[in-house]
Amino acid sequence: MARTPPANAKGTRDYLPRDLVRRNRVFALLRETFERYGYEPLETPAVESTAVLEGKYGGEGERLLFRILKRGQDLESAGRALAAPEADRSAGALARELADMALRYDLTVPFARVIAAHQSELALPFRRYQMQPVWRAERPQRGRYREFYQCDVDCVGSRSLTVEAEMLAMTADIFSRLGFLDFTIRVNHRALLAALLAGADVAEERRVPALVAIDKLDKLGEAGVRAELTAAGIVGATADALLRTLTITGTPREMLAALGSTVGASAEGAGALRDLSDLFDDLDLLGAPPARFALDIATVRGLAYYTGIIYETVAAGAAVGSLASGGRYDRLIGQFLGRDLPCVGISFGIDRMFAAMDLLGLQGDAAATTTQALVTLFGTETLAASFALAGELRRAGIRTELYAEPKVLRPQLAFADKKGIPLVCILGPDEVARGEVALLDLRSRAQEAVPLAEAVGRAKTLLGEGVGA
Amino acid sequence: MARTPPANAKGTRDYLPRDLVRRNRVFALLRETFERYGYEPLETPAVESTAVLEGKYGGEGERLLFRILKRGQDLESAGRALAAPEADRSAGALARELADMALRYDLTVPFARVIAAHQSELALPFRRYQMQPVWRAERPQRGRYREFYQCDVDCVGSRSLTVEAEMLAMTADIFSRLGFLDFTIRVNHRALLAALLAGADVAEERRVPALVAIDKLDKLGEAGVRAELTAAGIVGATADALLRTLTITGTPREMLAALGSTVGASAEGAGALRDLSDLFDDLDLLGAPPARFALDIATVRGLAYYTGIIYETVAAGAAVGSLASGGRYDRLIGQFLGRDLPCVGISFGIDRMFAAMDLLGLQGDAAATTTQALVTLFGTETLAASFALAGELRRAGIRTELYAEPKVLRPQLAFADKKGIPLVCILGPDEVARGEVALLDLRSRAQEAVPLAEAVGRAKTLLGEGVGA
Repeated sequence: MARTPPANAKGTRDYLPRDLVRRNRVFALLRETFERYGYEPLETPAVESTAVLEGKYGGEGERLLFRILKRGQDLESAGRALAAPEADRSAGALARELADMALRYDLTVPFARVIAAHQSELALPFRRYQMQPVWRAERPQRGRYREFYQCDVDCVGSRSLTVEAEMLAMTADIFSRLGFLDFTIRVNHRALLAALLAGADVAEERRVPALVAIDKLDKLGEAGVRAELTAAGIVGATADALLRTLTITGTPREMLAALGSTVGASAEGAGALRDLSDLFDDLDLLGAPPARFALDIATVRGLAYYTGIIYETVAAGAAVGSLASGGRYDRLIGQFLGRDLPCVGISFGIDRMFAAMDLLGLQGDAAATTTQALVTLFGTETLAASFALAGELRRAGIRTELYAEPKVLRPQLAFADKKGIPLVCILGPDEVARGEVALLDLRSRAQEAVPLAEAVGRAKTLLGEGVGA
Repeated sequence: MARTPPANAKGTRDYLPRDLVRRNRVFALLRETFERYGYEPLETPAVESTAVLEGKYGGEGERLLFRILKRGQDLESAGRALAAPEADRSAGALARELADMALRYDLTVPFARVIAAHQSELALPFRRYQMQPVWRAERPQRGRYREFYQCDVDCVGSRSLTVEAEMLAMTADIFSRLGFLDFTIRVNHRALLAALLAGADVAEERRVPALVAIDKLDKLGEAGVRAELTAAGIVGATADALLRTLTITGTPREMLAALGSTVGASAEGAGALRDLSDLFDDLDLLGAPPARFALDIATVRGLAYYTGIIYETVAAGAAVGSLASGGRYDRLIGQFLGRDLPCVGISFGIDRMFAAMDLLGLQGDAAATTTQALVTLFGTETLAASFALAGELRRAGIRTELYAEPKVLRPQLAFADKKGIPLVCILGPDEVARGEVALLDLRSRAQEAVPLAEAVGRAKTLLGEGVGA
């Protein structure tokens, strides 16, 4: 067997224990909160037939699919077809000819497939969350990976605004529980944007460039957006009207009142204002923290997908982009089913959330290992005592490693230090003879002798919270 | 966008909420127990470079790899190479030419890669567990899938028998906690088998067929094994001696004593008996239940891999094969590193474990959904009360869904019934006027009116255990 160059595939990551302690804690918090709001788990396979994925992501997305090579006779017959002199050997044609499956590219298409396949089993509205990796053949760069987790939460089958309200209350709950203090969930409505453009007399063909410009208000400021609008041919009274509206400030209710005179005249605008007003009322009824929500007329969130209320989440002091965003998309899922099915979703950007937590120093108290205690092993004469203590600690829910082989103390302490195990239970011949154990807290370097009968209780106290049941 | 045939890829499974409630509960129990014994989590990417995987699984294994098609220019240049008239267009050659990565085939090779790549970071011995899917292009059939979870627990870097002892104690702990009452962990030693064959004068070239025959004792009985031995040319005194040893029964200590006279004369045999004797002593010291362990001389566990103690787990009344098996393999990991690194492992067969639990009716009390309570929604005049109660229940850790839109009671109850939500909190105009909520337990169909201030406490009582913190 040849010696293997020990490299993980480009754009992928190994998660070592010290990475997974915090990661799994955050994942558990997300799952627990999703379920608390009535969302159920769903998992789909990593591979999908190309027939399911093709035509869903546009040309650029399709180029980023990781495709699975056909096998056996299917592969050989594809190979023979490609040997023909006239065969199309472009990358696209080769990909279509040689592959029959591809890796999951997002969680939306598999979700739609599941809904279509299990319509009779699933009671609507169906609320599900899904946290699984997806794969995209992007050029890897800092912070961008080819394998990364997506975390989608969607409710399919209801047009009720209570769905958006609960989803936003849940989102605020999650960021609060993660320790974010100063974050803002920016809310807007696609119909409000449409009414705004129509009301300002932006010509039909300039509405997409206008939205692209508006989306940059956060980055470029008023002058920057005016320059973008000018470049798009939107000038004079039209640009003035747009910018006047975009720069309305105040509480959501104040802004909604001010917008009434601008866009309230159109049915579309009035409907959007009513939705937003109801949404902010619902958030209050749910007890969601008002300071965490803003009406932001310049939030656009992509161009094709959404049909109603939209939202994104930003954290002060962590300029990594939106941490969680989504909205209502009433037509997308229907395209898979052949009938309309309203849907509201939010997608949590796992990698960005961890980047933001790093910048803000949140969840930084996570230990370096799941293991809480190391029981020493000195020799055959102390083996029984070490085994017995390890067993007792475990039965009390303390995550305990028994040092594997008899050694002097120093390498055992070095081992615990290197791994970041907080507590060492030293059971040398002297301790065993006295019926004691020496508990060494490696965080404080404090050591104390404790009667063996009291060891578990004292270890629990030293380890504090985080001791399992 | 075309209408998509809503099928998952062949040999894969979608996990709907009702599948995931039990599944996630069992996974959580496994993780928690592994960590309690000092094993840390590890996760590796789903894709590996073909350079890492090739040459590791033999020809048959390699044919089962799902390979990822090259992309862009790499793909086009591979396509051009294949267009040459003299190109080798066998499936194997096409696979090598057209793919640069493949899906994870097992968890052992990625584990070895991680150890090689992170030698300086990892304190040895390194105990890790890994629960992730693997992919194999097998022909799908009942109970065999192309995507399935493996669950491996390994300790690398120690020759101490305490590692095996703790691993077996942990395994017994896991099956007990899962509710298995009558299971047996069969223990054997590769050196004992070798000494047995040598002692019975089985010719070198007949030792592999002899082990294959011995492995079938469980299935074929003594007469069947004798027939297999005869077919392999092992007859007369040799076959008699083998079968005499194989049919030794008793407690592990009794069997070890009896084996002393048979294989104790060789250094190899004596060493194996000493290891096994120490192991059973250690298990007693750890408080592992003696009735769950057997010395089984006919346990073989494959032919190439293992070098020391081996084990497998069977459950009475669930003839699905071994549920968890492994052993010491001191040379495999070393082959990746260029230096020897002793290793002890066990692999839990997730799919078989679920099959056995189904056969034995274990963990069958898992709910059909994670959601515990549904709060009704009748109209705008009860909206505030419904939102408020949903919020309170959630803050108390009760997983609560708010019915999405105002409706009469009947469809809301039908919804809860279809999903399997146990508790419905009915907040109609009458209840709200009286400051009450009607709590309907859909399991017992019992309904009671409760003052709103007492609703959370009463809901917790009705839901019993399983209410989160």
